[in-house]
Amino acid sequence: MRGAHRTEEIAPFYVMQILARAAELEAAGKDVVHMEVGEPDFDTAPPIVEAGRRALAEGKTHYTPAIGIRALREAVSQFYRNRYDVEVPAERIVITPGATGALQLVLAATVDSGRSVMMTDPGYPCNRHYVTLLGGRTIAVPVDPETNYQLNADLAAKYMDADTAALLVASPANPTGAVLDDAGLQSLMALAADQNRFLIVDEIYHGLSYGRSLPTAAASPSVFVVNSFSKYFGMTGWRIGWVVAPPEHMDALDRLAQNMFLAVSTMAQHAALAAFQPETIQVLEQRRDEFQRRRDYLVPALKKLGFGVPVDPAGAFYVYADSSAVVPDSFSFCRDLLEEAGVAVTPGLDFGSHRAADHIRFAYTTSIDRLREGMDRTARFMESRRL
Amino acid sequence: MRGAHRTEEIAPFYVMQILARAAELEAAGKDVVHMEVGEPDFDTAPPIVEAGRRALAEGKTHYTPAIGIRALREAVSQFYRNRYDVEVPAERIVITPGATGALQLVLAATVDSGRSVMMTDPGYPCNRHYVTLLGGRTIAVPVDPETNYQLNADLAAKYMDADTAALLVASPANPTGAVLDDAGLQSLMALAADQNRFLIVDEIYHGLSYGRSLPTAAASPSVFVVNSFSKYFGMTGWRIGWVVAPPEHMDALDRLAQNMFLAVSTMAQHAALAAFQPETIQVLEQRRDEFQRRRDYLVPALKKLGFGVPVDPAGAFYVYADSSAVVPDSFSFCRDLLEEAGVAVTPGLDFGSHRAADHIRFAYTTSIDRLREGMDRTARFMESRRL
Repeated sequence: MRGAHRTEEIAPFYVMQILARAAELEAAGKDVVHMEVGEPDFDTAPPIVEAGRRALAEGKTHYTPAIGIRALREAVSQFYRNRYDVEVPAERIVITPGATGALQLVLAATVDSGRSVMMTDPGYPCNRHYVTLLGGRTIAVPVDPETNYQLNADLAAKYMDADTAALLVASPANPTGAVLDDAGLQSLMALAADQNRFLIVDEIYHGLSYGRSLPTAAASPSVFVVNSFSKYFGMTGWRIGWVVAPPEHMDALDRLAQNMFLAVSTMAQHAALAAFQPETIQVLEQRRDEFQRRRDYLVPALKKLGFGVPVDPAGAFYVYADSSAVVPDSFSFCRDLLEEAGVAVTPGLDFGSHRAADHIRFAYTTSIDRLREGMDRTARFMESRRL
Repeated sequence: MRGAHRTEEIAPFYVMQILARAAELEAAGKDVVHMEVGEPDFDTAPPIVEAGRRALAEGKTHYTPAIGIRALREAVSQFYRNRYDVEVPAERIVITPGATGALQLVLAATVDSGRSVMMTDPGYPCNRHYVTLLGGRTIAVPVDPETNYQLNADLAAKYMDADTAALLVASPANPTGAVLDDAGLQSLMALAADQNRFLIVDEIYHGLSYGRSLPTAAASPSVFVVNSFSKYFGMTGWRIGWVVAPPEHMDALDRLAQNMFLAVSTMAQHAALAAFQPETIQVLEQRRDEFQRRRDYLVPALKKLGFGVPVDPAGAFYVYADSSAVVPDSFSFCRDLLEEAGVAVTPGLDFGSHRAADHIRFAYTTSIDRLREGMDRTARFMESRRL
C-alpha cells in the first residue's frame, strides 16, 4: 500500500548518504576526514554530564510539565539577562525536544494549512519539510553574498504574498554561517509587524559567533525565537531546546506541546540547568575560541584552493564555499572526493536549489590537524583531476 | 496576531487542570490522593538507571542515526522473540521519542491531508490532534461495553468511508483498559487488508495485562505497531518508544524521522538496552503483579460505591467507571471531589464525547493504601451529597 504523498516530497539528506558511505569506507579500513558533520566534536561539558547523572541517581525519571520544569525556564530567562542584558520572562519560555521540536511547535502554532512560510535558499533543509507536514507552502527566497545570504526587508517585501503567514530567518545561519546585525533584525521586525506576519528567528547557533556579539530577537514580545542546547551548549544527544514566544501565544503552545511532545526528557532538563553555570560557560567559551581558530585556518585554506568565500562566515561552524571556479558540479565532486580522497563534505543540494551545484558546505567540527589533512587531500585530489 | 486555526481545535487536557489544581491544594497544605495520573508511580528500574548513568559517563552524548542505534533495534527484535515467540526483524523497527513521536511518525507516513483516521471514542485524546496537525479528519466510533470498548470488523466496516486511510486501535486501551483478543485483531487485519486501509495498533500498555497474555500485531508485516518504554518498562521521563513497520515503509519512516526528530535521546537509547535484561524484567513483573493487586482491589471498591464497571479492565492501569447511576455529570463530580475530598480523578470528557459525562477514569498508579484512602474519601463525599 502506498504511504502518504508527503513522504515522496521529503528528500533524504545527502549528508546522511555521505555519513553512511563514510562509515562503510572506514569499516573497510580507510581513513576519512569528517567535514560533513553538523555536530560539535566535543563531548557534552563535564558539569552538564555530572548534573544529568545526579538527576538519574535522584530518580528524576518521571514526566514533567509539557512546557518544561519551572527552574529551567527561569534559568533560561536569567541567561538572557546575564548574556544579553534583556528581560525575557520565564512565562514566555517553552522547553522543547531540541530545536527540531521548537521549530515544529512554532510553525504548528502560526501557520495554517494552505499558507506560506518564507525562508532563505540556501537554508536548513528540515524547515521546508515541517511546513509540508502542516499542509503549508514554502517560499524559498534565493539569497546571495550581496545580502550576506540573509533575508532583508526589501527581499521579504518582494517575495511576500497574501498567503504568507510567517518569515523564518536564522542567525547565525546553516549552511552559510551568515549573521543578521541589529539593523537587519529591526527592519525585518518592522516589516513583519507592519504587514501582520509572524517573524520566527532561529538562534540555534547563537553563542558560536566570531569577532562580534549578536543581538537576540528574544527581547521583542512579538517575535518567536527558537534556540537549542545542542550547538553552543554541546548537548546534541540530549534533545533539548527552547522557544521564546509572544505571551498571547503561550497558551496555544502549551496545548500543542502537551499533544506533540507530552514532555521533554526529564534528565536532559535537569542537566541543562548546569549549562548556565560559570564553570560550564568557561568550557563552552574555550570551545568557541577553538571553533574560531579552526574557521580562521579553514577560510584562507579554501580560498587558496580556488573556492570562493565572498562573505565572512561570522558564526556557526560552517563555510559555504562557492565551488564554481573549481568544478562544474559540486555533487559529483563531493562524491568523488569521499571515494578517492577520503574527505567527507556536504553538497549544496542539501540546502536548497539556488546555485546548489555551485556550493559545498565544509563543517569545521573536527580538529585543525584533521582540517589540515582534509585540505591537503583535497588539494591532491584536485591536482590529480587537473582542477 | 491570531495563531493557526488548529490551535483553537486543540482542547487542553482536563487532567492537566486537575493536576495544576491538585498542586495548588497541596501547596496550601491539603492532602490529595492522586488517581488521575497516567504514569506508573515507580521510579525507573535500577538496572536501566544505572545503564543511563554509565552511558553518560562514557560520553554517549552525541547524535545517533534518526531511526535509533542498531543495538537497540536488535534488542527490541530479540524481545519479540523471547516474549511473544515471533520474528520481528530489526530492519522493521524504528526507535522514536516516546509513543508520542511514534504515533505522529506513523500517521505522517500514512495519512494524507483530507483523509480520515478511524479510532474509538472513548480513546487516547492526543490521537485526534495528531490527525488534525496533518490536515486529516478523525472518525470517532462510539464504543460501548457490548464490543468490549473496542473496534471490531463490523463497526469498522460500518463507519469506514472512501477517505479512510487508517484504522487506529489500542490494546490495552486508555482509558478503558480493554484489550483485543487474537480473533478481534485478526478480523481487523483482514478487513484492513481487504479494504486497502492501514491498520495501526497501539501496544503502548502491552506487558501490563492481567490474567491473560496478549497477542502482538507486530508479527504481521502489513501492520504498523506503536510501542513505548514508558509504561511497562517505566521510562516515562526518558521519552523513548518504537514503531514496527511494514518493510516497504521503512525508507519513508527514516526520512520522516530525520526531519521530525533528527534523533532520539542517546542516553535513553543506551539505558533502554538494559530494559530487556532478566534482572530488569524481574522488577517489571513484580510491578505488574502490584498493578494487578491494585486493580483487584479497586474494581470491586468502585462497584460497591455504585459505579458501573461492565467490562473487566484487563490491562493498562485504568478503570473507566460508568458514573451514570451515581451522578448526572461526571465533570462537576470530578471537580467537587477534588475540592472537597482531595481525590483527583479524570472526567470522561478528556477521552471523547460519547457518554463522556457518564464516565470517570480512575488510575491505579498509586499504592493500595492510597487507593483505599481515595475510596474512603469518595464514599464520605458521596454520603455528604446524598448520592
